[in-house]
Amino acid sequence: MKQSEQRNLTMVMDLYELTMANGYFNDGDKETKVAFDVFYRKNPDRGGFAIFAGLEQIIEYIENLHFSEEDVAYLRSLNTFTEDFLTYLKTFSFHGDLYAFPEGTIMYPNEPIITVVAPLIDAQLVETAILALVNHQSLVATKTRRIVKAAAGKAVADFGARRAHNMDAAVYGARAAYIGGAVGTATVLAGQMFDIPVSGTMAHSWVMYYQDEFEAFKHYAENYPDNTILLVDTYDTLKSGVPNAIRTAKEVLEPMGKRLKGIRIDSGDLAYLSIKVRDMLDEAGLTDCKITVSNSLDEYTINSLISQNAKIDSYGVGERLITGASSEYSDDTLSLLGAVYKIAAVEENGTFMPRIKISGNVEKITNPGLKKVYRVYDAKGKARADLIAKAEEEIDMSKEFRFVDPQMPWKNQFFANCTAKPLQQKIFENGKKVYNQPTLKEIRAYVDKQLREEIWEEEQRFYNPHKHYMDMTPDYYDMKMSLLHDSRK
Amino acid sequence: MKQSEQRNLTMVMDLYELTMANGYFNDGDKETKVAFDVFYRKNPDRGGFAIFAGLEQIIEYIENLHFSEEDVAYLRSLNTFTEDFLTYLKTFSFHGDLYAFPEGTIMYPNEPIITVVAPLIDAQLVETAILALVNHQSLVATKTRRIVKAAAGKAVADFGARRAHNMDAAVYGARAAYIGGAVGTATVLAGQMFDIPVSGTMAHSWVMYYQDEFEAFKHYAENYPDNTILLVDTYDTLKSGVPNAIRTAKEVLEPMGKRLKGIRIDSGDLAYLSIKVRDMLDEAGLTDCKITVSNSLDEYTINSLISQNAKIDSYGVGERLITGASSEYSDDTLSLLGAVYKIAAVEENGTFMPRIKISGNVEKITNPGLKKVYRVYDAKGKARADLIAKAEEEIDMSKEFRFVDPQMPWKNQFFANCTAKPLQQKIFENGKKVYNQPTLKEIRAYVDKQLREEIWEEEQRFYNPHKHYMDMTPDYYDMKMSLLHDSRK
Repeated sequence: MKQSEQRNLTMVMDLYELTMANGYFNDGDKETKVAFDVFYRKNPDRGGFAIFAGLEQIIEYIENLHFSEEDVAYLRSLNTFTEDFLTYLKTFSFHGDLYAFPEGTIMYPNEPIITVVAPLIDAQLVETAILALVNHQSLVATKTRRIVKAAAGKAVADFGARRAHNMDAAVYGARAAYIGGAVGTATVLAGQMFDIPVSGTMAHSWVMYYQDEFEAFKHYAENYPDNTILLVDTYDTLKSGVPNAIRTAKEVLEPMGKRLKGIRIDSGDLAYLSIKVRDMLDEAGLTDCKITVSNSLDEYTINSLISQNAKIDSYGVGERLITGASSEYSDDTLSLLGAVYKIAAVEENGTFMPRIKISGNVEKITNPGLKKVYRVYDAKGKARADLIAKAEEEIDMSKEFRFVDPQMPWKNQFFANCTAKPLQQKIFENGKKVYNQPTLKEIRAYVDKQLREEIWEEEQRFYNPHKHYMDMTPDYYDMKMSLLHDSRK
Repeated sequence: MKQSEQRNLTMVMDLYELTMANGYFNDGDKETKVAFDVFYRKNPDRGGFAIFAGLEQIIEYIENLHFSEEDVAYLRSLNTFTEDFLTYLKTFSFHGDLYAFPEGTIMYPNEPIITVVAPLIDAQLVETAILALVNHQSLVATKTRRIVKAAAGKAVADFGARRAHNMDAAVYGARAAYIGGAVGTATVLAGQMFDIPVSGTMAHSWVMYYQDEFEAFKHYAENYPDNTILLVDTYDTLKSGVPNAIRTAKEVLEPMGKRLKGIRIDSGDLAYLSIKVRDMLDEAGLTDCKITVSNSLDEYTINSLISQNAKIDSYGVGERLITGASSEYSDDTLSLLGAVYKIAAVEENGTFMPRIKISGNVEKITNPGLKKVYRVYDAKGKARADLIAKAEEEIDMSKEFRFVDPQMPWKNQFFANCTAKPLQQKIFENGKKVYNQPTLKEIRAYVDKQLREEIWEEEQRFYNPHKHYMDMTPDYYDMKMSLLHDSRK
């Protein structure tokens, strides 16, 4: 079931999209074509990259974009719009082009991950939803990948629904977490909608419902002899929980010919406890019993657990995965992925003329014009840089290719023995979808492949990651500089 | 339109709610009544209080709780549940009682803001959704109140949709922000669904679409002569944006007999710029032109702007309002409101027997038993403390009333000349709603009234707020201590 089939999400837009659209309509400009780029400025958590996620929901939003009678009636009640514009909205649908990175692509600041080339009103109206969908899922996918990286091969599952920012954040957050490398989710609706593996055993309430802990474990084991995972920290992990779990293995499961599959620890010193618990289980002959932990985990706490030789087989991660929160930094851009939607070009007499925003904050200066973005690979298949070019430029890497590093524009630099892959695909053409979206499992595998084979490890570490090169062709760089120069006159 | 009328949200639950329910069902325990409390442990942002929000959506969720044929078919595919249980789910609806604080009530850590008294399965299945709905809206309402407090009487509007964690977070976040004291939202659907005032004028794209800034302003003013608010920072706020805005006021609006309503600054040094811009506007005779600012604001940046005598009339706040993020602290509980759902009592032979969770983390020890929570007011109507009592206790404040401060249990303490108001209302009885939810405007006014009249200013400051007293009756305290004592044997 698609998000937008269930309900009309068209009106999840900022009012100014509509006040601008009304102005353009009344000025007769609605058919003028423009280009908007979606990009972000900083990686979350001071990381070296982010993962692009949410494209499938953007496609659905755009395909279903329409204003119902009730929507138009509400807008009329605001006394802001002309009746001609309201009439126009009644039959409005998106009829532009949209280009985007394939979902799951590793992305970097200041490159156009999505470009909308469309009539002015169409391009304006989709801004808010595109940004909300990209920002949310990309943040969670990126955060999850960091946690998965820290877990160093051990399983990470999403336990976050109760801490998610409402229902969609739980469900689409689970989807994004799966893209980022989680093995599954506890959220049933996410499993149902996206065929993500679901898992879940017992809460403390199960243990507390019964008069004593062993009785609780016994009932659980009898109900789920093939999948008995016992929560051992309700009263005292080492003195009560684990001894009762071992007793359950011996007295309840073994007579049925079954093994205790695992225990979960949800509080206390997880490093210390997991080592002690592993010893106790091993001494009882339960070497195959897995230890799962949960409790405010993130990539830093997991890193720390591993450095203390904690004996943990899998991690249930909730609030910090599903919200992107971090224990490590206090920072402007801490737990946010702030993608923005900026006009890059306006069609004038059949030609797209570049536009640039200057701004009081240098980092808010935009990259103007219709452009293409390439990922440049060295001979070993490693991603050496991303390259921004003018849309009409031919990129020929068969010979040495000169480029400009905007941080060091005075230096002549060359790609040699490299290949360049354009990153954007055409998703919509004249409002019609022309793209086959891969499956969620394919997206997840694509993320994993890029990070294992193409992206430098140095960009993936948590502390001071290498900054990915974002280069420009000389033509593109000159165009941007001349626009900057002109605008300062 | 209600969230849950538009789609079936029943399955937004953790799988373990269902594995436990299946176990209880198969053991024949499904009709045993239990009590669960919802409470949280720490105020967000190291604040002194939080605002309870989301009750209306909890009511809707519970009223609409049902498993469709597709839901049951999906659950069957997991090979985890008995066929009898799946059949039972097909006709399942919630048939318990639910008590809650009225929406908008100021709340504190470790008190039961919601209590569910229901058959075991009913009580278990609603856990995940209740928590997600409470945690999200309460966080945003609380954060917004902090921002509103910092703004010291100036208007704060929600501009956050694009940074929200997906669609629901934008829409219900706008609702929560309104409860917290925002004057309105930019999110159109939130305005439509909840009758919240909406606002919005232009983006940088409007300015950049035209060949020059004055032309852009002129077109806008001609379209919206009664509501012209111009974004002045696209190129250079002081050298270009404000001079063009003044020219628009003089050359476009004044000949129509109209005034320039406002300008907005979205980048640069907002303190410096607002002072300069105010001077420029005043010198041009535009003393009635308002200055709005935006750009990664929160309560700390607004506080700082005010202390620098910035000349700002209203604030548009986006990402940090809608996500609860903060620039100030790096902390476990930074931007989270972590409400939990813990079993407090189980009915045995007609009596609710208390249950307690011990845990390796002291702060995770629960308050056991069926209880009532009162807000105790002094003679001046100020909230002096909250008081937890056993459900069956009579609280008589007409004479001195002895209580226990659990932090100083050795000290005999008394309330004198106080009144006590029970905080929970009955919302559902045997699955039927028995409560009239106030309107959103009433909830918003209720928040404001409590914070102005009842709650100490000392609890509302940002740095080292006074900690609200959470006291217990002697009977309740003794019951908790004796349970703790017993469980340690």
